[in-house]
Amino acid sequence: MANNHPLKTPEELLLSLGLELPIAAGAVSNYEPVVQTGNLLLTSGQLPWINGDLKYAGQLGQGGERSDEDGYQACRLSALNAIAQLKNHLGDLSKVKRIVRVEGVLNVHPLSRWTGQPKALDGASDLINTIFGEKGRHSRMINSNSAMPLDCTSLIYIYAEVE
Amino acid sequence: MANNHPLKTPEELLLSLGLELPIAAGAVSNYEPVVQTGNLLLTSGQLPWINGDLKYAGQLGQGGERSDEDGYQACRLSALNAIAQLKNHLGDLSKVKRIVRVEGVLNVHPLSRWTGQPKALDGASDLINTIFGEKGRHSRMINSNSAMPLDCTSLIYIYAEVE
Amino acid sequence: MANNHPLKTPEELLLSLGLELPIAAGAVSNYEPVVQTGNLLLTSGQLPWINGDLKYAGQLGQGGERSDEDGYQACRLSALNAIAQLKNHLGDLSKVKRIVRVEGVLNVHPLSRWTGQPKALDGASDLINTIFGEKGRHSRMINSNSAMPLDCTSLIYIYAEVE
Repeated sequence: MANNHPLKTPEELLLSLGLELPIAAGAVSNYEPVVQTGNLLLTSGQLPWINGDLKYAGQLGQGGERSDEDGYQACRLSALNAIAQLKNHLGDLSKVKRIVRVEGVLNVHPLSRWTGQPKALDGASDLINTIFGEKGRHSRMINSNSAMPLDCTSLIYIYAEVE
Repeated sequence: MANNHPLKTPEELLLSLGLELPIAAGAVSNYEPVVQTGNLLLTSGQLPWINGDLKYAGQLGQGGERSDEDGYQACRLSALNAIAQLKNHLGDLSKVKRIVRVEGVLNVHPLSRWTGQPKALDGASDLINTIFGEKGRHSRMINSNSAMPLDCTSLIYIYAEVE
Repeated sequence: MANNHPLKTPEELLLSLGLELPIAAGAVSNYEPVVQTGNLLLTSGQLPWINGDLKYAGQLGQGGERSDEDGYQACRLSALNAIAQLKNHLGDLSKVKRIVRVEGVLNVHPLSRWTGQPKALDGASDLINTIFGEKGRHSRMINSNSAMPLDCTSLIYIYAEVE
């Protein structure tokens, strides 16, 4: 599969966006941030934080505390943390052969009937497509919950096929 | 594994039910409707629409706008769209070796304490079992959300093992 | 991969905890409790019951009927049922090479803004880590829903890599 950016690695593309990978967060509890089975990597849920500072908490939709733009940015930052987990596991992001699936769980006010999930999750998808090019084109799952760990605005999970 | 209908293809069984596959919807956003990793296909969430016309929107459970029977029909139609995605990707549904998992996300009124999820999701399971016979026997996941993209009543995801 | 308990099988470790595997529940509906694809097993959602008696129903969080400790115990019992499904499928739990992923869906009051999910899901993780040792170290997914099948407090799903 052709990479859109044959001369640039994912790490170089992150740099060119001015993005630094946060430190990959250890699991808060009795589980692993990433597990590999065969050539498939599965991450646990990644919060929108930078080195322990939670940047986006609160709910989306009418009655919530967060704007649609916050939803986009929260998903983008959660995805950056998921990429940091892949980097931490693989050492080199060029070992990613395909981002297979992105799962997003969003914190949404229960009475809002909010429908902004696809645009919010684009915050994750746009970043992944930019960094991984053709190898980044993924399927997606969306869930909207009204209660979240640490009241975070987004949790992003990545399934990645590796060499 | 024996097929219940050794003389009929999934396409012939769809025809015998009077069902036409809708046009496989392109992803609304920056992602793919289907991704293959190894011999596993994963679809993105499929809405209960026919060629762009959303047939089931609104919530299930007391306080919602939709009946339990609507829930069953919405899941059935979402599953038909997921099958259309498999067909679009594979060309030939006989290449499906096993439907591995069906994930259903339902739009449920947050205060309803509704418990009709298993029967609603049978709308997807019954269709899949009819079309794929023994190859259709799948595991399931259910989620109930109170906010959904386009306020749709159901999203169905399929994992399929292919040859 | 080293097992923490080289001299004890998972079955012996269950026994030493005084735990008996419940009878693996058949699917309530038109689907399978476990499906294998390649060397990956996926279970359907497991309720916190013992041989048909639902031990934990109701919601977590303020306004709900269940305490945080109930959440932990419900997840533990749901996980025990998931292990029973693996045992029923494999005959011998020593065939589990790795617990890859644990998915927990919790029944949470929609207006509670409850944040106890990680500790509740530890009920599943702690049991799995105890029984499977190093082979049990898994990734996790958490969802909070405000409507559940049979109003159960927890549903646990396991992905397991087998030999």
